[in-house]
Order: sequence, then C-alpha cells, then structure tokens
Amino acid sequence: MEPDLTVADQAALTSGNDFWHTTPAAGLPSITVTDGPHGVRLQANEHDVVTGRPATCFPPAVATASTWDPDLLRRMGEALGDECRAMDVAVLLGPGINLKRTPLGGRNFEYFAEDPFLTGVLATEWVRGLQSRGVGASLKHFAVNSQETDRMRISADVDERTLREMYLRAFQRVVTQARPWTVMCSYNRINGVYASQNRWLLTEVLRDEWGFGGVVVSDWGAVADRVAAVAAGLDLTMPGPDETGDRALAEAVADGRLDPAALRTAADRVRALVERAAEREPAGYDADAHHALAREIAGRAIVLLKNEGGVLPLREGQSLAVLGEFARTPRYQGGGSSQITPTRLDDALTALAESASVRFAPGYDDVDEAVALAADCDVALVFVGSEHETEGADRDSLDLPAAHRELIERVAAVNPRTVVVLSNGAVVLTRPWEAAVPAIVEGWLLGQAGGSAIADVLFGRVNPAGRLAETIPVRLADHPSYLDFPGENGHVRYGEGLHVGYRGFDARELEVAYPFGFGLSYTTFEYGQARATATDAGIEVRVPVTNTGDRDGREVVQVYVSVPGSGVRRAPRELKAFANVPIAAGETTEVVLHIAREDLAYWDTRLHRWVVEGGEYHCAVGSSSRHLHTTATAEVTGDDVRLPLTGESTVAEWFADPRGAELLGRAFASADSGPIARLIADPGTISLVGSLPLSRMSAFPGSPLTADALAKLIAEANG
Amino acid sequence: MEPDLTVADQAALTSGNDFWHTTPAAGLPSITVTDGPHGVRLQANEHDVVTGRPATCFPPAVATASTWDPDLLRRMGEALGDECRAMDVAVLLGPGINLKRTPLGGRNFEYFAEDPFLTGVLATEWVRGLQSRGVGASLKHFAVNSQETDRMRISADVDERTLREMYLRAFQRVVTQARPWTVMCSYNRINGVYASQNRWLLTEVLRDEWGFGGVVVSDWGAVADRVAAVAAGLDLTMPGPDETGDRALAEAVADGRLDPAALRTAADRVRALVERAAEREPAGYDADAHHALAREIAGRAIVLLKNEGGVLPLREGQSLAVLGEFARTPRYQGGGSSQITPTRLDDALTALAESASVRFAPGYDDVDEAVALAADCDVALVFVGSEHETEGADRDSLDLPAAHRELIERVAAVNPRTVVVLSNGAVVLTRPWEAAVPAIVEGWLLGQAGGSAIADVLFGRVNPAGRLAETIPVRLADHPSYLDFPGENGHVRYGEGLHVGYRGFDARELEVAYPFGFGLSYTTFEYGQARATATDAGIEVRVPVTNTGDRDGREVVQVYVSVPGSGVRRAPRELKAFANVPIAAGETTEVVLHIAREDLAYWDTRLHRWVVEGGEYHCAVGSSSRHLHTTATAEVTGDDVRLPLTGESTVAEWFADPRGAELLGRAFASADSGPIARLIADPGTISLVGSLPLSRMSAFPGSPLTADALAKLIAEANG
Repeated sequence: MEPDLTVADQAALTSGNDFWHTTPAAGLPSITVTDGPHGVRLQANEHDVVTGRPATCFPPAVATASTWDPDLLRRMGEALGDECRAMDVAVLLGPGINLKRTPLGGRNFEYFAEDPFLTGVLATEWVRGLQSRGVGASLKHFAVNSQETDRMRISADVDERTLREMYLRAFQRVVTQARPWTVMCSYNRINGVYASQNRWLLTEVLRDEWGFGGVVVSDWGAVADRVAAVAAGLDLTMPGPDETGDRALAEAVADGRLDPAALRTAADRVRALVERAAEREPAGYDADAHHALAREIAGRAIVLLKNEGGVLPLREGQSLAVLGEFARTPRYQGGGSSQITPTRLDDALTALAESASVRFAPGYDDVDEAVALAADCDVALVFVGSEHETEGADRDSLDLPAAHRELIERVAAVNPRTVVVLSNGAVVLTRPWEAAVPAIVEGWLLGQAGGSAIADVLFGRVNPAGRLAETIPVRLADHPSYLDFPGENGHVRYGEGLHVGYRGFDARELEVAYPFGFGLSYTTFEYGQARATATDAGIEVRVPVTNTGDRDGREVVQVYVSVPGSGVRRAPRELKAFANVPIAAGETTEVVLHIAREDLAYWDTRLHRWVVEGGEYHCAVGSSSRHLHTTATAEVTGDDVRLPLTGESTVAEWFADPRGAELLGRAFASADSGPIARLIADPGTISLVGSLPLSRMSAFPGSPLTADALAKLIAEANG
Repeated sequence: MEPDLTVADQAALTSGNDFWHTTPAAGLPSITVTDGPHGVRLQANEHDVVTGRPATCFPPAVATASTWDPDLLRRMGEALGDECRAMDVAVLLGPGINLKRTPLGGRNFEYFAEDPFLTGVLATEWVRGLQSRGVGASLKHFAVNSQETDRMRISADVDERTLREMYLRAFQRVVTQARPWTVMCSYNRINGVYASQNRWLLTEVLRDEWGFGGVVVSDWGAVADRVAAVAAGLDLTMPGPDETGDRALAEAVADGRLDPAALRTAADRVRALVERAAEREPAGYDADAHHALAREIAGRAIVLLKNEGGVLPLREGQSLAVLGEFARTPRYQGGGSSQITPTRLDDALTALAESASVRFAPGYDDVDEAVALAADCDVALVFVGSEHETEGADRDSLDLPAAHRELIERVAAVNPRTVVVLSNGAVVLTRPWEAAVPAIVEGWLLGQAGGSAIADVLFGRVNPAGRLAETIPVRLADHPSYLDFPGENGHVRYGEGLHVGYRGFDARELEVAYPFGFGLSYTTFEYGQARATATDAGIEVRVPVTNTGDRDGREVVQVYVSVPGSGVRRAPRELKAFANVPIAAGETTEVVLHIAREDLAYWDTRLHRWVVEGGEYHCAVGSSSRHLHTTATAEVTGDDVRLPLTGESTVAEWFADPRGAELLGRAFASADSGPIARLIADPGTISLVGSLPLSRMSAFPGSPLTADALAKLIAEANG
C-alpha cells in the first residue's frame, strides 16, 4: 500500500519538471520521456531543445508501414528500447498512429496508413517490442489529429461511427493488445471538445471501455485548463513546470470544483509509471547492428511501383547515370519533433558506386548536365521527390517540384532505361509523368541506412516486397478528403465519413494511379482457390500461393472483406487480414490467415456498441486492394442483439419483431380501431403506414393507442 | 382588439377539424387547406382522401424550374389562385422548395432545383402570383426534407453553414420577399430534433430572424408531441381532430409545463389566418385559358439536350414513327399528395398527328414492331423515361428501364434520325445510350398539356429555351451525395456539405453528361464582353448578347460568382443572377443583371451571421454553369465585422489585429518574459508559435500572461 500524497505533491506530479522530465515530488525520482518514434531524440544540451544526441535513425512510419511486416516492427521496437536504456529514457514518445486522412497531412511521414487495421497491427508489434525492453511507449496522438493546419485548436467534426471504426480503431487495438504504458492526448478538439479535456475520450472510451490502466500524458502544450484536464482523465501535463496550474488544481480541490479523487488518481498513475520505469536496467546497444537493422527495414519498405521490360534489377556491368541531389544528399526523415541525429548516414550514390560504374549529376539546377550523362550511360537513375515535410505545416500540393519533373522527362527522352527513385514523406502524384519511364521505385523516407537499402533493391540483393499503405490517386481532386481539408474557422468536417483512403476511391469506383496494398516484386506469384471457414474466433482463410518466377521473394497476401446486403453502409472492401510470406522460387505455400471476429464488427449507432452482423462474408484475397485473385465466402453467425421497441420505432419495425407483431396485432384486434387498423390489417396498404413511428398513431382518429396504451405496449414488448 | 379565446378554444384552433379544414372554434369559420402545388387537389368525396376534383394539372416543379422564368411562375401562381377561389380553397399547400440533394429523391419532381438561388427566385414569384389572388401559400417542407426513405423519422445531420447557405436559403428568400401566409414544417428531424418541435427552426430562425408573421402548419402527421410543438412555435397541427392532444395542451398550460402565451399566440395566428382568408371573394376561372397556360409553361420547360445535324425541328412532310407507350399514355405528373385529376389530358401522339403523318408502336413490349416502323419513316421519335416517381419512396437507380434503353438502341440502329423524348420526374442517365442518337429532348413531367407542348417544340412552333435545374451526371457514383444516401439507423449525414449538385461536380472537376443551366435552342447566341460594377446594392453586370441564328429565341443568361482568395471554402462557381431574355434573330440585346448584395454573403460560423467578404468578385457569364463565355470583375467592399479577440484566438490572430498587436507587444515588452517573448519578437520564429492560442501561453515558463493579465488584455482588445 502506497502512502497517500499531499495535494501539493499530487498537483506537482501531474505536470512536468521541465521539457523532458517528470517532477521529483514526494521522494520519487524524475524519469525521462523523450521524442521518437523512429529513433531516440534525447536533448543533447540544455540550451537547445531541438538537436538530439546521436541515435539510430530508423525509417519513419511511412516506410515501416510499407513493409506490411509486424515482425520487423517488433524488432525495431526492441532496438529502440535498447537505445532508450542506453540513454536512460523511460518513455519513448511513440508510435504515432493517426490515420492518414489526407495525403496533404504535414505529419503523414510519422503515421502508418490510411487503414486502421494495418496501422493497428503494425503499431501493436512496435509497442510490444519497445516495452519488452522495460521502456514505455506513448501511443499518440489521441485522437483524430489528422492535420497540422490550426492544429492547436481545430475541431475535427466526425460522426460517431466514423470515429469508432476509423479514427479510434487502431488506438483501441494497440491499447487492448499491447498495453502501452502511456497514451498521449492530441492538441486538437474532437466535435468541439479539446482532447486534453475530453472526458468521453480519456475516461469513458480509453479507460472504461478499453481498460487502459496507464498514464495519459498531454502533447506538449496541449493543456488549456489543468483542472478541466484532470477532471477529464488527463494525468500528466507536459512540459513544465506549471506552478500556476499546480496551484489551480489545489484550489479546485479545496473549493470543491474538482473531485479530490480525480487528482489523487492522476498522481497515483504518474507515481506508478515512475516506479515501473525504475525496474529498467541500463544497457548498451550495438550501433552497427542497429544500422544493419535500419537497412533491412528500409529495404523491405521500398515499393516497386513499375518495372516494364525488366529494367530492374540492374545487371552487372551496366554503366549508371545517377541523377538528382537526393542520391548524394538523401532525404531520409521529416522535420519537427521526430528529427533524429543519426549515428551515420548512407547515401545512395556511394552505395551504388560500390557495385557499379556510376557518374553523378545533381540535376535539379542543371538538367542539361544530367541529360548528357543519361545519354551516355546504360541506365539512368533519377532521384527526385518532395522537398520538405514537417510537423507544423500541411502540404498544399501532391506534385513533384517542377524541376524534378523536368529532370524526369528530359532524362527519359534520351534514355529508355530510366528509373525514377522517389524520396517523399507522403504521396506524390505519378500520373503526370509515369508513362515516360519504364520503372518507378517508391523510396519514401528511409532513415539513415536508406541509401544502402535503395542500392540493395536496385541491384536485386533485396527482392522488393513493400506495399502501399496509402493510395496514390490520379488527381488530388479525387481524394475522399478533398472537399473538407483543412477546414475553416476552427472546424474541419470529416465529410467523407467512413470513406477514408481506398474505401472512398472504391466506393466511388474511381481510377487510381496505384491502389492501396500494391507493390511489385522481381518474381511473380499465382493464387489458387481460397477457402474460408467461420469459427467462433472469426474466419479462417486458406489460400495456396505459388512463386512462379525464378527468384525467391515475399508476397503480402491480403484479405478484403465485403458484406453484401449489410444493414449498414460499408466500404466495398475492407482489409481484415494479411500475411507477409517468404516463398522460394517455384514453391507453393498454403497461407493461413485469421480474421478475428471483433474485426468483423461495425459500430452500431443505435446501441452504441460493436455488433457483428450475421450473414455471408465475402473474403477477397489478393496482392492489393484492387488485385484480388480469389474470393471465398463464410457464413457468420451474428451477435445476439435486439433493439428495444419504442414509440419511435416504426410500424414496420414493430411488425418485423415477433413479439412486437403479436402485441400490436392484439392491440388493434381488441378495439374498433378505425381506418388505421384496416390499413395495418391489409397487406396491400401496410407499406403506406410502415414508415410511421408508432407513437404518431395516437393522433389518428379511432386509434386504440392512447398514451397509456402505448406505454403498456412498449413495456410488454421489451419485458 | 380581438376578444381573448378560452384555453380550450385555443387548443382546438391549433389542430385541424378533419383532413382538410381548420376547426370552427370560438365562432370562427372553418377554412379549407388542400394539396398543391401544381394544381388544386380538392377531395372529391368524403370517403376517398386521394382522388381530387378536376383541376388544371400544371407542370410539376421539375418542369417549371426548367423554364428559368420567374414571370411564368407568377402567372401560374395567379392561375392556381383563381382555381382555389373557384373551389373555396383558402390555402394551397405549396410550393415545395426543398433542395434536390440527390437525384434519387422520390419527391424531386415536386421540387425545383439543386441550387437555392434558382429555387428561391422562382418560388417567390409563384407565391406572389398565388397570394395576389387572396389565397395563401404554404411554403414546404421546412426544412431539409431531402428524401423519402424513413422520412417520418430520419435526422438530416447537416453543419451550420450548409444549413444556412443551401437548405434554408431558398426558404429565407421566399419568406422575406413573398411573405407566404403559412409555412409547413417537415416530417424529418434536423440534427436530431424534429422539425415540428424545433424551436430554433420555427421560432429563432423563421420568426425572429426572418420576420415570418404567418402560421406554421405541420405536415400531415408530422407532430409527435403537441405540447413540444406549440412550445417550439408550431401553430396548426394537421390533420385533426386531435382531442387527446388538445387536452394535453390545456393540461400543460394548467400545470405550468407550457407557457400560456405560447398556446395563445399559436391560436391567435390561426385566427388571423382564418380572418385573412375570409377577405377572399369567390371567383371562377377559364379552364381553356388555364390549359393554354399549362401548355405554354410546358413548352418552355422542355430542355433540348442534343440536336446534331439539325434533326430538329421536324420538317414539313416528314413521316414520323412515334414509338413508346408514353407518346400515347403520357407520364405527366408524379404519385402522392400532389396528384391532380386533370381537366383534360393531351398526349403527344395525337398532337403530333395534327401536323404530320405518324405511325405508332407502343414499343417497350414489342421492340421489333417499333424497329420496323422506324426503318420505314423519315424520323423516329422514341418516347421513354422513368416508370414511376412518387412521394413516399426514393428511387434506387438513375437508369432507364432496360426495355426503354433497348428500344432506343435498336431504333437508332435502323434510323439515323432518331429523337429521344424523355419523360421523367428526376434525372435519368443519358451517357449509356446518348452517342447512339442525334437528338435528345428532356420532357420531364409536363402536366396535362405536355403532349401538345412536346409537339410544339418538335415542330419548332416553340423554340426550346428550357435549361437544366439539376446536373445530369455521367454516373450516379459521381454524385456529391452518393456516399451518404439514404443514411442508416435514423440518421443521414450530409457529408458533401456545401457541395450540393453542380457545386460538388465543379469542386472535384468531374466530367458531367449535361451541366446545370444547360439547354440548346434552334438558334444560336454569342456573348460580348461583360462588365461588372459594384454598387451599394450589390453588383450590376451588363453583357451584350446576340442572336446569331435565323430564328427568334430566348437565351437564359447566367452569372456565376467566384471569390478567389476567399477566407472560407466556397464552391468554384455559384449562380447569383440570371435573366430570361427573348432576342429576335439577328438582334443584339444588352442584358442587365443585378446581383443583390445579400446574395454575395456567406454564413460565418464564428459570428453566426451572414457576412459579405471584401475583395474581388469574379462574375462569369454564360449559357450554363460550364459554358461561360465572358468574365467581369467587381471590387466589393466587405461588411464591417470584427471578431472579438479571446484567449482561444491564436498569437497570429492577435498580431493580425492592429489593436491586439499593439496590446500584446506591450505586454511582452513590459516584462522579462523569457523565451516566448523572444520567439514572438523574432519575425523568423513568430510562425512557430503563431498557431498557439494565446491562453496556452500562460503555461510557459516566464510568460507575463497570468490568467489576470490575459483577462485584462482581452477586455482591452475588445473594449
């Protein structure tokens, strides 16, 4: 049993001691929390909150998500945990799992995907890996923090079902499956209420429903009102110190505006966190091994979008024109709080030169020079991408810089073996120029070993297996979020609702440049017939997949579920399972995928709970959301739910319920009930009154449904 | 001074005496209210509430809106008023002015357009015409009643700005400009609250803001709770009698649950309506003249969509194959409460036979016979369309019936001079078959004289001048409403927000089959350079338009406004003025259009009021929303509005305000205010903290912004 803390100590514990430490009140030590998520950004000196000590800069989430490989994420989490222990960091601020609502989101490079299932599965393993080392994660930014514009204040106005199925879903999965030590509330408001003061979010959903037992920490500067925040369920306000706020808390407890239990509970949770962190033993780490891991993940994150005529992999003895400054000066991470000082930095130019004869031109400012080199070499590698992505600012275009596009087009005009290598933190449009080149390599931001990883893929030492975690649209105007971003006057309507990312493109049957889940390999795969079996746990899907090429490779087998005839609107297809499977050349593997029953549920807005609908579930299996090779069907037994009948239930709904039908029939039979009774009795006219809420009938002449009779009927129907 | 009514009389007056009459309480007479809007549907006998006495069936609103001619609407309103007087009807239940949110809306044929300006201008003249005869209108269905699915209960979930600018805007125009005697509340809920119990809607907006002084009547059966309805501002519940409800009102007044003034006011308004109706003198009407007017309006409503190779108008001596049962048995109105028993009924087959040699085949069930006729005649006229549209049920497709499409395609295959004549209450897709035929005539539902009117246009006695009041999309999936219709579980999200109809197609730069405002003529028009002048009243636009053909004709000159650089999201173009101008062959007319300043305003969600933004307004002038021939610009002075500065205003917003900037600068200058003051003082870093709400600064170490200082600053800034 812990001793009780004084109110002053309680208040002090619930705000930071400075930017990166908890307050050492009540005899507790101070612990260090610091930025991640793709490296440990520990402040190097006290006058510079920006620059961190050297640490391995792993690939940002935009890249790790493209691996579609939970095992890689777990190993990266473990490595990060080791680096935290080496630097005495107790809590690493990550992962960032906000849904990529729009490709313009300035912080997209820190987030995983436009799909909550993929996000949740990958982030769960990252957290498990990190926390297996005795270091806490901070799942962020909770919640609906999908943009940087007006980010401290914007209200994300989202309907209930969309919130649950899209924007909260990955959080729910990670909280319930990986139990992160902390969750970080976001800056923004949700339907008008600040996340930091949102009791529904921080207490009812996070703790009461999901069983979260850790600490809710604020994003840095997210708390406007300490008293309201603690009352809502926020435990730790960062940064600090905030003596004014600490006093306000004590006063609010003293004068009864704040339940003393709320403050005490918050402080106890911070104390428990500090004590838990104390169990961690210091450790070192092997920087070379971590660099190698960063290279492995980066290689697996690269997505081969196009490869016509077998331009890739490069062949021995080919002369290479390496064009574009990004080959020499890599873009390997985004700006803002996640920016890591790397332990070393590989560039593609050097890595390529290790295996081939290369000639380089920086390109963007002197295209002529690049074109001349390209004309003189066997293959032209054009390194282009977005120039900057950073926390704090959204993008305003998906276009490549004009100079980069010119470089592509002029080089392609002189060399038919032109390969475009992209470096970008979020989607850029390929449609304007893709027809000009035979090969496109999507390299995202790949961390400190990205340059070597690109060479690995280009030379075929790594057979590409990355897959898009976000759709590449034909035009920005096609994007589901297009009409409602970035909002105005402090509000952004999530007008597309459930139809985020591929769900929206599919629902509107729009052409896309490259679909969600897409990525090529240097080998080829063929799918046999899938089979699906409903089980108590969900659905098991089995499908034989054959590597029909002459190279070993990996296939990411994806299962998209549809529910034809569903009683609620659903996207045409939703990712519900995937498997990342190595298959040797010529081999066939039977891939077994498990769809958890809970992942089949939709959020019912009448019952305010998850419901699994009974019926036929179609499981389409393939290599992307639009390359579906085989479909299997399973008959799923629905949850046993019954909506209570009320006066607002329609006549048709009453008659659709066996007990309701019996009672209503009896009520009308027992009285001379006039024209309405005749309308109901007649199968030809029931449709005319079927949409009438039952209570509305009491106004009709001769209706036996007096207010009392109606109340009795309702009680009996639900009794 | 009227004598006070007893509470019992008050209650009795606020519900109907039967389906179609007010209650004759307190010595008042009973007045008749009955269905419209495109004719007078007076119940013919007491046992049949459906069949009406014969009356002129004018074209439904889908057709009258396509005239784009306010003068025609006024004349139709006058004629309807005369028929009401002949039948002792005091209030005609119309016009229906709900926005066509989706082309699937089952009642779209009763509504005008997908644009609130066009709707409002036309409906205003209809009401003026009707009420000029001493008969009251009932503006319906107030409000946001855009679908039939679950119509008694569905909640239209719409954001504030969309409500104001799109779904309430036409109501506001008609109420303020034409002063309808009554407004009819709708069945549905708006953001969860029944229209019939919606105090914000019925009192705050309708009466307090718009100055409505008439009676709010319920849609038939729309009232769930009489007490709540009267408290909200509903005056007359229909139908009746509702003795239970009357008693409930009296009891609620007696026990204090209902303000006695609310019931008294409602009853007084009903009394005033009855007394106003008594001033009406009986009158007869000339059925032949009204039929002729119905024919004139119908001819002007027809939209010529396509006319290649001069197939139309028909030439003297051509033999005509008239194909399709609709030529003989016209579809001329929709189903439900607006269904009129016409005084006579013209069919196209008979009307065409008066001027040409015609051969007829009913077609749909025997396409072979029709094809044989078509092959044997000079011109084939194919009459097809939608089979049924009715109140109470939405459509589930925009496709023509399969048999109709087959008829078109097989006839077109044998006769290159095939003209498709469409009869439909709402949009049908043309893209699947339009390339097969040289001419398409969109005939909507044209009322009892539609058959003659079609002949008038086909023979060129009427030069077509109708224009689309709704976009014809390429595919249903392109429609802005597509993802959110018809909703589920009692709610429908208006996810597309402001982007209704053409606004959505334009915002997403989507191809359409035929754009809003489009329609061909048998002559051609050319536009000169437009000029725009800002005035105190708004913007005046002048443009010379020349009839460059050899036939007299009408041009509908349309002005679409854009506000480049607007501080709020706007549709790319919005209709703000139009003129329906007859221009003789070879003549040039300078068309003068006035855009009212109030029509330039957007609804500001911070101030909760209409605001005219200052700046350059681009006025694109043309013959459809996508046939814009000339653009003029006017510099408009904005409204003098100032947002109060608060603690939630960002640092950037404080600095953007001259007074705020001065005060804030002084506050930071007056103290050693630490790193924040330095960040603000430096132009290079102000952007980093610019998005920070000012109140959030008090948590930063060294900030001079204590809670007291902040409060003082805010008071001074707004003082």
